[in-house]
Amino acid sequence: MHSNSVYDDLVSHYTRLHHFSHVAAIAWWDQAANMPPKGNEARAAALAEMAALTHRMRTDPTLPERIARAEQETLSDIERANLREIRRDWRLANALPESLVQARQLATSRCEHAWRSQRPANDWRGFLANFQEVLRIAREEARLLAEHTGLSRYDSLMDRFEPGMTRAVIDGIFGDVKRWLPDLIARVVKKQAEERVLEPQGPFPIDAQRALCERVMRLLEFDFDAGRLDQSTHPFSGGVPEDVRLTTRYRDDELVQSLMATIHETGHGRYEQNRPREWLGQPVSEARSMGIHESQSLSFEMQLARHPAFARLLAPLIVESFGRQPAFEPDNLCKLFTRVKPGFIRVDADEVTYPAHVILRYEIERALIEGDTEAEDIPALWDAKMSELLGIDTRGNFADAPLQDVHWAEGLFGYFPCYTLGAMYAAQWFAAMRRAVPDLDACIARGDLAPVFDWLRDNIWLQASRWTTDVLAVRASGETLNPAHFRAHLESRYLGSDA
Amino acid sequence: MHSNSVYDDLVSHYTRLHHFSHVAAIAWWDQAANMPPKGNEARAAALAEMAALTHRMRTDPTLPERIARAEQETLSDIERANLREIRRDWRLANALPESLVQARQLATSRCEHAWRSQRPANDWRGFLANFQEVLRIAREEARLLAEHTGLSRYDSLMDRFEPGMTRAVIDGIFGDVKRWLPDLIARVVKKQAEERVLEPQGPFPIDAQRALCERVMRLLEFDFDAGRLDQSTHPFSGGVPEDVRLTTRYRDDELVQSLMATIHETGHGRYEQNRPREWLGQPVSEARSMGIHESQSLSFEMQLARHPAFARLLAPLIVESFGRQPAFEPDNLCKLFTRVKPGFIRVDADEVTYPAHVILRYEIERALIEGDTEAEDIPALWDAKMSELLGIDTRGNFADAPLQDVHWAEGLFGYFPCYTLGAMYAAQWFAAMRRAVPDLDACIARGDLAPVFDWLRDNIWLQASRWTTDVLAVRASGETLNPAHFRAHLESRYLGSDA
Repeated sequence: MHSNSVYDDLVSHYTRLHHFSHVAAIAWWDQAANMPPKGNEARAAALAEMAALTHRMRTDPTLPERIARAEQETLSDIERANLREIRRDWRLANALPESLVQARQLATSRCEHAWRSQRPANDWRGFLANFQEVLRIAREEARLLAEHTGLSRYDSLMDRFEPGMTRAVIDGIFGDVKRWLPDLIARVVKKQAEERVLEPQGPFPIDAQRALCERVMRLLEFDFDAGRLDQSTHPFSGGVPEDVRLTTRYRDDELVQSLMATIHETGHGRYEQNRPREWLGQPVSEARSMGIHESQSLSFEMQLARHPAFARLLAPLIVESFGRQPAFEPDNLCKLFTRVKPGFIRVDADEVTYPAHVILRYEIERALIEGDTEAEDIPALWDAKMSELLGIDTRGNFADAPLQDVHWAEGLFGYFPCYTLGAMYAAQWFAAMRRAVPDLDACIARGDLAPVFDWLRDNIWLQASRWTTDVLAVRASGETLNPAHFRAHLESRYLGSDA
Repeated sequence: MHSNSVYDDLVSHYTRLHHFSHVAAIAWWDQAANMPPKGNEARAAALAEMAALTHRMRTDPTLPERIARAEQETLSDIERANLREIRRDWRLANALPESLVQARQLATSRCEHAWRSQRPANDWRGFLANFQEVLRIAREEARLLAEHTGLSRYDSLMDRFEPGMTRAVIDGIFGDVKRWLPDLIARVVKKQAEERVLEPQGPFPIDAQRALCERVMRLLEFDFDAGRLDQSTHPFSGGVPEDVRLTTRYRDDELVQSLMATIHETGHGRYEQNRPREWLGQPVSEARSMGIHESQSLSFEMQLARHPAFARLLAPLIVESFGRQPAFEPDNLCKLFTRVKPGFIRVDADEVTYPAHVILRYEIERALIEGDTEAEDIPALWDAKMSELLGIDTRGNFADAPLQDVHWAEGLFGYFPCYTLGAMYAAQWFAAMRRAVPDLDACIARGDLAPVFDWLRDNIWLQASRWTTDVLAVRASGETLNPAHFRAHLESRYLGSDA
């Protein structure tokens, strides 16, 4: 008998799970990108059945004993890391009964589907009717997960996305950001008030935008033989590593938002396309965490795409798509990409005000999960915090307030902090990259993006879940998460010599 | 305890199976309509896993006893019919071991995917390398099915698509067709040689063709809230009843083929969209057979769309799409749609020569399955039969000969006869319809298609698998399959008073 036979059996189990997840991922992408409305009930039932199936496999009662026996076998370091991730997956999955997983899938499918028409109709009441069930289930999940992990309820939800991260750490980080961010925003807005920025003049036909987005994705080395770009209400990166499905959205009077959303998703997509092929299907091959995932999308969208030198690479592509106009001069494009303006919409927010959107959602969802507030209170809380953090009035405007995001409709609580953790990690990666490649900015300026992609591939993509997040960060950058890089990046880019 | 508890348990089992089949159907459609090339290996593995899963459910060893116990319960006629179909499904599935089902899925996915590039490259050798494995598996399937059913090998494959149909019946029907068809073709070709037919002048931009196809689908009452039209290499109807996915293909120098392929698939699609909602998920709700399914696509494509009055409905839509030209006059369109010309491609064939293509495939695949010929002999056999039946030389032209169809690559042996059975049933339905609605042709002429759709809905779509095929045919038309209607239809439409 082979000495790793128990481990090998576990590998087969997770490979089968991976195959089922593949089919579910494609059906899920299709639901968002293609599905006509009358397909929804049947799709929701089918995806709930898939969720129940994969949940049963992840909670197979023979797993704990098999994991324990495999730990006694002679394993390589990678295999040990895989076993660690298998144990973690089992622990998370096992906290939840199948009936709850299935109820969650049904409730979130229904809520997400209805949200697509409720958002344009500004229909908060209609949304609330579905969302209350989603929240009820999320609270029950948090209660069960907390019992199982010994973490607090909100921490137990966050741990699914960002292993090891806690409310105590986030409160420290976000508390610090709240101290310096309002002043930074004010200084940047004041500085930029003196700049003259030209708005691109539309219309920008959707077909031309799509073609431009695809060209930029090619510049960013997205592999179109292993993925696609489509449209959905909310941009996302889905599919499977071998076939990554990115989506964006277009408006024919707007150019920058679809382009930046596409660049953002391309960062996610390249991480997925470059996860280590030889471990695919195993938990060790998964992306390390959602914060690390977001550090890739923001490395692309914020660190790279808003870099002054990158505007010089984009400008000729934009001109070829829409003709020459003064707004398309690289300096103007760069000003457009880095214009700071408090606004309603998180996904359209600039790099400086973005953390305020995340802090708002974090504070509300933490209170929702811990039972300190109720779903019907969200609009009032939202308005108060938008007013406090960004000076914006959202009264009566639900479409641009809580209805703007799909996360809560999908039951994703504990996820929002990852966006700002991702921004912080991205700044940390680029600081490390500049130490490793001192002429990095010159490389970008001459269109040589290989040093960026090589660094990310070697340090992040190919590492997948081989290490815990802290070890990954130390190996990549010499330190664990250090938010000082993010603040320094914002001050340098947005205040320059004024900092 | 509820008196039908065993039956109700079986219903739940098949509902779960239906959910898994839903997800697999969407992933399968996506593979043909969307998937980039590097996604194929992973998709094939994922679909093989799904096939193994559903196969395990269909062969659950507790089923025979549960079916027997359910038969003792107090059931309605519909429930009894469902139990009959459940028993049939179990019998078919149980003949095949899971390993063979999985091997089949892998081999056919690989063969089908490679075929997409091998066909344009005329690469018979490359195709053969994959196809030999597909054939080996199909022969093994036929051997096991034959053992299980007591049918001959080829009959046992055909029975999966056309329950109760046998080689003896087909030999009789096709033998008769071969006696009268060559003479009919010759007479029609001679008659049409004197007609003047104008060819539409292209180009026909793809976007305009797609929009036209969608308008015609609406005219045919396809429900776009419960389905889509997309593109693939080979047109098909896929998806699920609640979300029917039709595909067609376009060439910008050709108009009629994509339109007729779309109308054909719309017939399949409307059958699927109108299967009885209250039984969905149960075997009794499935389409009766592939021949009956094809009788719907051909009711749309042949009986209706090539009807002289229908050209008058289409003409204004075509003019709106591509401008006015003499070829778009209704009389000319009708001549175009009914032009008879022996050709290479089955799916582009006219109504009169089509049976020749089917008879050729039937004779070859029957010999392949029964071991009377080998895969490498196909091109020579093909050429001989094309020469004999239609006077066409296919030597060296594999792309327009065996490589034109995807069926064998997908392991679909025993399916081809269903096309001509479908044409025969369609003629029989329209004969019955004209008895029930004496002014049917006048209705079509004034654009009132409701009598056609109502008859098909009541007699075919909503009946699903409630009856055996013979009973369905008798209830709908007063007789079992009677090929005389097909011959009469061809003679009346193509020779008219000359017949």
